[in-house]
Amino acid sequence: MSLYTAAILIIGDEILSGRTIDTNSNFIAKNLLKSGIKLEEIKVIQDQRKIIINNVKRLSNKYSYVFSTGGIGPTHDDITSESISIAFKRKFLINKEAFKILEKYYPKGEFNKSRQRMAMMPQNVKLIHNPISAAPGFIIKNIYVLPGVPKIMEKMFLKILKNIKKGSPKKVTTINTNLYESVVANELKKIQNKYTECSIGSYPYFNFTSKTGGINIVISSWKMKSIKIIEKEIKEMIKLKGGKSFVV
Amino acid sequence: MSLYTAAILIIGDEILSGRTIDTNSNFIAKNLLKSGIKLEEIKVIQDQRKIIINNVKRLSNKYSYVFSTGGIGPTHDDITSESISIAFKRKFLINKEAFKILEKYYPKGEFNKSRQRMAMMPQNVKLIHNPISAAPGFIIKNIYVLPGVPKIMEKMFLKILKNIKKGSPKKVTTINTNLYESVVANELKKIQNKYTECSIGSYPYFNFTSKTGGINIVISSWKMKSIKIIEKEIKEMIKLKGGKSFVV
Repeated sequence: MSLYTAAILIIGDEILSGRTIDTNSNFIAKNLLKSGIKLEEIKVIQDQRKIIINNVKRLSNKYSYVFSTGGIGPTHDDITSESISIAFKRKFLINKEAFKILEKYYPKGEFNKSRQRMAMMPQNVKLIHNPISAAPGFIIKNIYVLPGVPKIMEKMFLKILKNIKKGSPKKVTTINTNLYESVVANELKKIQNKYTECSIGSYPYFNFTSKTGGINIVISSWKMKSIKIIEKEIKEMIKLKGGKSFVV
Repeated sequence: MSLYTAAILIIGDEILSGRTIDTNSNFIAKNLLKSGIKLEEIKVIQDQRKIIINNVKRLSNKYSYVFSTGGIGPTHDDITSESISIAFKRKFLINKEAFKILEKYYPKGEFNKSRQRMAMMPQNVKLIHNPISAAPGFIIKNIYVLPGVPKIMEKMFLKILKNIKKGSPKKVTTINTNLYESVVANELKKIQNKYTECSIGSYPYFNFTSKTGGINIVISSWKMKSIKIIEKEIKEMIKLKGGKSFVV
């Protein structure tokens, strides 16, 4: 069984300043999980050439896929495409196909110099079409270069996802219980040690109004054919400890 | 003028799987900005010893402050404290002060082995008190180790923030305009080149209902005493281009 891995690279001073909440990562993460691609890292970096260059090189070597968002618009602070050209020693020039798309999209006389900048890309890339505002993203090596605006990014990402190699979706079951983490911790550890091909996580929650809480136990595996048996063991264990449980 | 830098390290399989949306980063980011601490990196990593060890070492060397969230609960998948002990070659043992706090918090007989695990920390750390659910975080070198549950993390973070060295808050002004990025891109670039000690970012927005859009232009500087003059120049430029503007 092949396993594909991925990283997300958010190029975004506006995220680091807290001005904008990054919703792109969560959207990509959920869809990768369903597609059998294991997201192993999310990194938010500053809009700076050297930092972008170092990170795209490192991530491209390390993971099957890299999804970058942000920094491909028409203004001076949009330096993603240029930085990626430098990273892979490719010429940075007008992509003719992108130029035509943009030229066609804008009313006559409005396809100015700044807008033309959005057609500047590393040499020899494959375009990712943008059904909303025309300006395309692109694919270079295993890197998928997307815009930062969520509504546009989402559409373009889903289109990419259709066409890339995927693995088997991760098997995931979540069991909710009213027991606290510390009550089940020991037994969960034993079950985890017994089934090393799955990962058992426990996530406490609190309701500050009703002052009740408990945990969600998440069983997941990229490798096992079924995780039903683990689900059963955990539910039995919860019952033995006097707790309630249900699959979320 | 001294400048403090920071990184956030999110230890979180649940973020990478898309199960949970990370709200901690944005909360920390906004508060750091106000405090004159420059957030330069956010990284979300898997709950794995080796990955945690490598990242805390790297980030601790690189930035003035590192804020980690997640992985300090009582279950087997909570391996942050242990991993940090290994990273800095410190013994991993019961912190007596933390033990006393937890012992006092739980009803008699309920301070079991798993809960005692939350008192296990690297040797010689300073505790970060937890006003909600008792289990403390800790400070080791320049790393602030916090829990992942947002309501708890937030309270603990704000308490830390009071007591650490801060810089001058970043100066930030946002100008909203109905003009598109490409219309002002050239002029913005000129203004940016004139004032190299500030950073000018432009962020497009779209209203999909009214089909109108524009950009927010964010002027920011850690170094300049005032950015009023840049604000003025940009507003004048927008007027010249036939656009409207107002400070957000």
